[in-house]
Amino acid sequence: MSAINQYLTTHAERFEEELCEFLRIPSISADPSRAADMVRAADWLTDQFRRLRFVAELIPTAGPPLVYAESPNVPGAPTALVYGHYDVQPPDPLGAWVTPPFEPTRRDGNLYARGATDDKGQLFTHVKGAEAWITVEGRLPINLKFLIEGEEEVSSGGLERFLVEHADRLACQCVVISDSSQFAPGVPAITYGLRGIAYYELHVTGPRQDLHSGVFGGAVMNPANALTQILSGLIDRQGRVTIPEFYDDVLELSAKERDGLASLPFDEKQFFDQIGVPCGAGEAGFTAIERRWVRPTFDINGLWGGYQGEGSKTVLPAMAGAKFSFRLVPHQDPVKIKAGLERRIAELCPPSVRWRLIYHHGAPAVLTSPDSPQIEAASRAIDYAFGRRPVLIRDGGSIPIVTEFQQRLGAPALLLGWGQEDDGAHGPNEKFCLADFHRGIQASARLWEELRK
Amino acid sequence: MSAINQYLTTHAERFEEELCEFLRIPSISADPSRAADMVRAADWLTDQFRRLRFVAELIPTAGPPLVYAESPNVPGAPTALVYGHYDVQPPDPLGAWVTPPFEPTRRDGNLYARGATDDKGQLFTHVKGAEAWITVEGRLPINLKFLIEGEEEVSSGGLERFLVEHADRLACQCVVISDSSQFAPGVPAITYGLRGIAYYELHVTGPRQDLHSGVFGGAVMNPANALTQILSGLIDRQGRVTIPEFYDDVLELSAKERDGLASLPFDEKQFFDQIGVPCGAGEAGFTAIERRWVRPTFDINGLWGGYQGEGSKTVLPAMAGAKFSFRLVPHQDPVKIKAGLERRIAELCPPSVRWRLIYHHGAPAVLTSPDSPQIEAASRAIDYAFGRRPVLIRDGGSIPIVTEFQQRLGAPALLLGWGQEDDGAHGPNEKFCLADFHRGIQASARLWEELRK
Repeated sequence: MSAINQYLTTHAERFEEELCEFLRIPSISADPSRAADMVRAADWLTDQFRRLRFVAELIPTAGPPLVYAESPNVPGAPTALVYGHYDVQPPDPLGAWVTPPFEPTRRDGNLYARGATDDKGQLFTHVKGAEAWITVEGRLPINLKFLIEGEEEVSSGGLERFLVEHADRLACQCVVISDSSQFAPGVPAITYGLRGIAYYELHVTGPRQDLHSGVFGGAVMNPANALTQILSGLIDRQGRVTIPEFYDDVLELSAKERDGLASLPFDEKQFFDQIGVPCGAGEAGFTAIERRWVRPTFDINGLWGGYQGEGSKTVLPAMAGAKFSFRLVPHQDPVKIKAGLERRIAELCPPSVRWRLIYHHGAPAVLTSPDSPQIEAASRAIDYAFGRRPVLIRDGGSIPIVTEFQQRLGAPALLLGWGQEDDGAHGPNEKFCLADFHRGIQASARLWEELRK
Repeated sequence: MSAINQYLTTHAERFEEELCEFLRIPSISADPSRAADMVRAADWLTDQFRRLRFVAELIPTAGPPLVYAESPNVPGAPTALVYGHYDVQPPDPLGAWVTPPFEPTRRDGNLYARGATDDKGQLFTHVKGAEAWITVEGRLPINLKFLIEGEEEVSSGGLERFLVEHADRLACQCVVISDSSQFAPGVPAITYGLRGIAYYELHVTGPRQDLHSGVFGGAVMNPANALTQILSGLIDRQGRVTIPEFYDDVLELSAKERDGLASLPFDEKQFFDQIGVPCGAGEAGFTAIERRWVRPTFDINGLWGGYQGEGSKTVLPAMAGAKFSFRLVPHQDPVKIKAGLERRIAELCPPSVRWRLIYHHGAPAVLTSPDSPQIEAASRAIDYAFGRRPVLIRDGGSIPIVTEFQQRLGAPALLLGWGQEDDGAHGPNEKFCLADFHRGIQASARLWEELRK
């Protein structure tokens, strides 16, 4: 590995410059006006793989294209599939960024940009890990397939279709994904469980048009009033979701796993201080870690209605709306939950307004065995690059496609997060620690060797 | 009066053209960027009065100027003060207008524009009524003072200060205001009661910045969730406001007045059909008219938080906010209500987020005697112009300055609404029926004569 390490050191600065190029492309999948930028990002990645003599192609979908690449064949060696996504979240609220989201900037050892950690920076470590092998040794220790999508932040629709139709092309022994966080600075982790999600949008409509709240208020139901009644009624004051049968299938935590989670080096007070809230919150009877990783949630992601401008306007709005989502845990079923949600909204909504529910996307939770040989191989690679064996954790976020990989390919997922929890994924001032970027590249290069054993 | 009537007929078209000029000025008081347009509208009005040989001046305030004008003196005659406002509501949502809000357009006998009925079109009837007397007879039957402000839609701050300091200049026997509606098409009305208002803005803040709802959701209170809890908790399912002592001072309706309201020609089903809602709503135990005129309300006027763009974003927002208002009835006190509101929000808000309440403006309700000689004079003038005696009604809207007039000048207000309830004041496609515009001018001209008696 010493020649490989030498190569990584020599080219470290170029790796950063290349990542900045990638981050400058505003590949926002939720924004239809960014379609050309999506293709630009996909082309840029494809070019990276072609320089390594991978067979690379753009696979069209109804949305942004998939990037698929295969390394030169290593006969008899196992195969790993690396998954990532080149799309990013919208950068709103723009005014909260210290430097513009698509002008990557180094500050205090971090690289700030939308997508820095989620997921351009993280997926790029595996491209550079492969590059080191190809350039130094002329070949990789194992066979690598890369599948990088452009719809992770919206639906993964194109990828799911490709998986259904081309599972044979993707055959592998494990799927490697770096799209999550370390447990803490200096405490690398492997994630063996993820929450699922069910994401909705609700529109409540009342009068044909906005009305004067003085002339009509009191006799005409205000859709914004009704919306707050419905939303606040979906969760009780103990932090429990009130949808019928919502908790029926929830896999409760074993005493052993509960003890494991409790033993992690985690300071609740410091955690909430850092976030900037006066105290924690959530479902009664659970710790903050349990609430984040193994318990379901209800969160409003967006809310609107009426007048949002300067000053005051005495309007009774014609409509109000919200985007909201439930995080799901093993073995909750998003489809079953949708039926319960509709029943609950029907109960909560006053008859004097109309409502319409839109289902955006969903995925069940994921739980893999923490004792597999692949997890052991990854633990050694991380120990080598980060100087410490990783802790085994779960994560509250969702990578819906991980379920699909497990179901379609029968291969376990290795979730190797190089990020930090305060990286601001999805928020303003998203960042990626540059030292973690380089440690991630080294761990990736080592992983290919460990997986050959 | 026949020469006056002849004049009104001859010049009807010019009156409409002049009103269109007035309406083209986007004098939106809530929008700080419209300051120059506010002055333009005030100048335009001042010019109208100077042409009638009124002594007219612009009176500076911290905001848009007041327009004040006095007619040539008629010794021994009584004095009436005409109040109106040249500012208008913001035109949002712009996309809902059939024709642009500041390009007045005639359709189906109506004139469509922001401010058409509220209040430029209505106040202008009194300018033209005076013009007819001055031009035809060389003088008015009584003394007229006009006081037209540019802050009615935001606070009336400048006018209130002027009233405190210059009540002597404004001495009069009654205040004439046309800024409300007829009871129905063909059913003119005089309004003897108005609701008050207390308008607030609430900001709920949680984490220092937007967070990933997967990574943090469940353990960190979501400010949008908290906001919906607070807002929905301010009103119960029977439509009763839950603020402590909120109903203590409410003047309950007498059996006689209740019977009077019940005898008005009002079809609830038709009313709600026209608005486009499936059914009515509101405080249990009251009719739709009572809920609109004599009962207090809670309405959310604006709501925001998190992601409102295309598609989905899995964000736990750092803040959420709302604008909301209570309509008040006689004898509720806005100041007392604010204290109760703060206590109630403190009860409802989870300790894991912070809240801040901003008081925008407020005014108590108004109730005047329906038996005064001025109301009798106005009834005769309306009968003359509209061909029918007006019904005596109350209104759910607020004209905060009316209370000030009663308190500072000791003069009763004559609320002579020429508008219609479906005029869309504060909403898109605001309109004023042109026939009502001309009938309003004729009633105004007649009123000056009736008030002399």
